[in-house]
Parts: sequence; structure tokens; C-alpha cells
Amino acid sequence: MATIRDVAKHAGVSVATVSRVINETGYVHDDTRKKVETAIKALHYTPNEVARSLFKRKSRLIGLLLPDITNPFFPELARGVEDEMQENDFRIIFGNSDENMKKEKEYIQTFVQNNVVGVIASTNHPDTDTYRKLNIPVVFLDRTADNRPSVYADGREGGRIAAQEMVARGSRQITVMQGPKHIRPAQDRFKGAIEALSDQGIAFNVVKTSSFSFTEAGTWAKELFEQHPFTDGVIASNDIVATAVLHEALRLGKNVPDDVQIIGFDDIPLSSLLTPSLTTIRQPAYDMGRAAANLLVRLIDDVNIDNKTIQMPVTFTERDTTRKVNQHG
Amino acid sequence: MATIRDVAKHAGVSVATVSRVINETGYVHDDTRKKVETAIKALHYTPNEVARSLFKRKSRLIGLLLPDITNPFFPELARGVEDEMQENDFRIIFGNSDENMKKEKEYIQTFVQNNVVGVIASTNHPDTDTYRKLNIPVVFLDRTADNRPSVYADGREGGRIAAQEMVARGSRQITVMQGPKHIRPAQDRFKGAIEALSDQGIAFNVVKTSSFSFTEAGTWAKELFEQHPFTDGVIASNDIVATAVLHEALRLGKNVPDDVQIIGFDDIPLSSLLTPSLTTIRQPAYDMGRAAANLLVRLIDDVNIDNKTIQMPVTFTERDTTRKVNQHG
Repeated sequence: MATIRDVAKHAGVSVATVSRVINETGYVHDDTRKKVETAIKALHYTPNEVARSLFKRKSRLIGLLLPDITNPFFPELARGVEDEMQENDFRIIFGNSDENMKKEKEYIQTFVQNNVVGVIASTNHPDTDTYRKLNIPVVFLDRTADNRPSVYADGREGGRIAAQEMVARGSRQITVMQGPKHIRPAQDRFKGAIEALSDQGIAFNVVKTSSFSFTEAGTWAKELFEQHPFTDGVIASNDIVATAVLHEALRLGKNVPDDVQIIGFDDIPLSSLLTPSLTTIRQPAYDMGRAAANLLVRLIDDVNIDNKTIQMPVTFTERDTTRKVNQHG
Repeated sequence: MATIRDVAKHAGVSVATVSRVINETGYVHDDTRKKVETAIKALHYTPNEVARSLFKRKSRLIGLLLPDITNPFFPELARGVEDEMQENDFRIIFGNSDENMKKEKEYIQTFVQNNVVGVIASTNHPDTDTYRKLNIPVVFLDRTADNRPSVYADGREGGRIAAQEMVARGSRQITVMQGPKHIRPAQDRFKGAIEALSDQGIAFNVVKTSSFSFTEAGTWAKELFEQHPFTDGVIASNDIVATAVLHEALRLGKNVPDDVQIIGFDDIPLSSLLTPSLTTIRQPAYDMGRAAANLLVRLIDDVNIDNKTIQMPVTFTERDTTRKVNQHG
């Protein structure tokens, strides 16, 4: 591969001159610039990004921290981030935090050591020094933090909608699954749901869960119907759990939605392929990823931005695990 | 944040000495080394990875190129790669190729520009110059390439097993879904399945598909039952497509597995939560990712390795979309 020295030799100029042309760091005569550009083309020279980042003190790398890429909600987010970043010629260093503060801190630290120019993080701890003390732009994704840059969906509103739609469709023995306590969006949904049920004077049971893992979801679904056998409506903390609840309800010989209605959260790609297909509260994951990346790019470019907190809509996505509203409304 | 200059001042030595200690690039007296180490600790100094990579000419970054993280098979692979890399203190630059050669080339190029020390790639084009001319280690994941380092599962054998198990369970009007032509593992599975069916003298139909996308999967499932209404067994090209076929079969009022048996490929996490749960050919995705990362780390460390091509087992994972063998065997 050609080096900067080869280019300098080919163009008959000094290495410093080639560097000035590449990094736009000082005056170079037009003729000289042309010579250098011709040499770059002739030798198929690609500037080393690391060297360039030392010269310009700016890399084209950003750090992306997500809780767990094997939860089907996050690949959609990640894909949105990547597509937008790719179009803007940025690359992504990626890590899973497992919602673990220590792991998260280590990742952010190594992102910085690798000279990322910005960070997108789904964190439960936006207020820690890990983020407060970063002197590069940070966008919180799927999480909020005061008035700092963030892209998120309104989980509380989503929870309210789920509860209202379920009641409107006739369920009166509702069980709400409380997602993991340390995951903020899960708690927002939970709060929204129980608020709306309380507002309507509807009693409900709560089943506590401690993760979004596929393997544990089955256990909670079993517990739910053992502890609350007369449940006729389940508000699940996400689509993975909802899928497990559906699976268990059918295994017990229940008719869904006639005996029990189920509403999930997220709208992961498989939701529409379940039988019956899953009614859920949709978050526009891919668009959220895109929006976060776009916001970060603008922050990196130091564009003047009016609105740094972007709330995306949640939408009731009616499929076949809920009854039609005119049957009961 | 403390700089190398602060450390030098604190320790009462030159910047060059601090650099020698950090980068292990030359002799430093034990007493001096201790002074520098004490200063590093006192000031919480973290060496800049970019500067270090220029000194040592080695970064702690590797590039990971996957086709599409929103296909649920790949997050498992990615997670395996990341967990192993994290334990070995490497970080990952990540990209989706969409099985598109141009995008793939651009990613590999920017990986190199960012001084990655190794690459893991799921590519259909291992023999192009993009990989041949790289002078850093490459491990092909989920793909093979002659005797070059790779970790993959035996798709052909997987296809054979699917066909044999389906025939053993009584299907005689089998439709095989041919996965995307440009994706090698999909074609291996397809070849294996039709070989095994031909060996047993069983006639079959073929439905062609051109991607693994969720949205298109539904269309192909519809086509399948329109074109071949008497199908009593479907060998799907992966679990996404199998899920869509199951959904369509149930929508048409067919009993699965009594009227039609379905076998998928991959064993994505949701497969066991479908109703009926999906019988599939399992690839150990997470372990494959781990193995690829482990192999790459050893190649980077220049360890002498006997076996650079690691074939992982595929296993018939019997669930409820196939009949029990004693009913028909």
C-alpha cells in the first residue's frame, strides 16, 4: 500500500506539504495541490485514519452502547444508527452493557481512548460522571435525561394506552407484568399501565420479572397463570414476554383473545408472524436509531440545534391477541 | 484529564521515558519505572489508544462485518464475538454489509484505515482481493473459504438431516424453499436437502426466495401454498421463513404438524416460543461467534494454530411442527 512518503516523492514535494493538502491545515499553492492530488490518485493512496485523527484531532468513529443486541428490539435501533452513520461517513465501535454499570463505564472509557467523536448510549445512569464528564457529544437513546440530547419513545403513554385499550375490549381481571426494576423504560410502561387502570377503577395483579431474557420469559409466563389463573388480560413488559405468555396461554388450552387478551410492547419484527399475531404498543425502533445518529452528527458538526430531546410516538398496533372493540365497546 | 506530560512532570522524568514505560519499547531502570507507575496511578492517567497504536503499531480494535444485524441469527453471533473480545480486551468496529459487495469493500477499507488488527467477516466473497490483500488476520464466520481461518456450521449436512427427518416422519409432498442465491450457507442447506430427497427417491417442489427479510417472508409463504396446495412438508431456508410458513399454514386452517410439517434452520431464540414450537436445525450461533473471536485473538497473538477451520455441529432440534417418529416410522 502507498504511504504518504510515496505520495510526496511522486509529487516532488515534502511530506509536510502532502499532509497539509490531506488535512487542510495550511496554505498550499494550487499547482502544488494539483500535483499532490494527482499523485494520490495515481498511487491509490488512502490516508491512514489514525494518523489523520492525530493531525486533525478528529476521528470518524462514534461509540454505540446498547444493553443487549440479542433482545430483538435493539438490532432495529442499531441498524437505524448504523445506516445514518454510514451515510454520514462515520463508523461505529459497538458494545453491550447488559445494563451493568461497571461494564458500561469500561466501554465508555475505551470508546474515549479510541478517540470517538461522539457517543450514543442506552443507559440507566445518564447522570453519572461517566457521561457528565465526557467532553464529546452524547445522545441518550431509548432513555431520557433532563434536557440533555436524547431520542426516546413515551413509555408511560404507551403503558396508559395498553391499559385503556385492554379495558375497552372487556378485560376485567388484568395482570400487569412489571419489567426489570433497574430498566427505566420498563418502569415507565409499568407506571403508565397501572395509572390508567387505577384511573378507571379497575383492579389488577402484578407479576414481577427481573430481565428481558428469552429463557426466563417462559418461567414468568407459567408463574402468571399459576398465581392468577383467572387473568383475562395481560399487559406484558415487552414483546418477548408477551410471546411467552401467548405460548403458555395456548399450551393451557386457553383461547386468545376470547379467554385472555395480550398486549406487548415494542413491535419486534416477529410479532406480526405469531399466531394469533401479537397486538402491541409499537416503538419506531429503526427511526429512533436514525434520529439519534442524525442528532449526534449535528452535535459533532456543532450545528445550532433547537430541539435536542426528540420524543417519538408510540402507537397501538392492533392485531389478533385482542378482541375487536365493537364486540365489547 | 491527565496527559503524558503531567505524568512526566509528576514523576520527574522525560515524556520519552514515560512513553517507554507505557509502550514497553526500551530499557527503563526499575526505580524510574516505579516512579512513572506511581505517577500514572496518582493522576489516573489513561494512555491514549490512538497515540499508543501509532507507537506500538497495534490497536486493540477488530472489525466485525455481518450481513444484517436485524436477522435474529446474527445478534447471537455478534454477542458471542463481543463477549470473547471483551474478555480479551479488544473492541469491535461493526458494520452491516447487506450482502452487498460494494458496502462490504468500503467497510473493510475503513476498518483498515482505523488500524484494526484483525477482521471477522461473514462474506460471500472470501476470494476477492478485499480479503486476499489484507495483511492482518481474517476469520470468516458462518462462511468457509478453502483452508483459510473460518468458523462455520455444516449447512449441507443440516439440509440433509432436515430432509431425512421429514421423510422419516411421513411427508411425501415436500416443498423445499430455496434461500437467496447469493448467500452461500442458504445454498448449502438447499443442496443438502434436495440431495437427501433425491437419494430417497422422494419428489419435491422448490419455491425460490431472494432474501431473509421478515416482510417478504410472508409473501413467499403465501406463494408456497398457492402454488403447491398439497404440500405436506416444508423445509424452510431459515427460521424467519419457517415462522412465516407456520403463520400462513395456520391461517389457512391447516393442522401443523398433522396436515403439514415444517422444519426451520438456525434455532433463533423465538423458535421455541412459537405455537406449535418450531422444529429446526440448530446452529450454535453464540458459540460460533465466540469460537471465531477466539481464533482471531490467537491469530493476532501469532500463536501456532493447528486447526484454523472450525466446523461446528448442526443438530436436529425436535419440537412440535413435526410429528413424532414412532407415529410413522
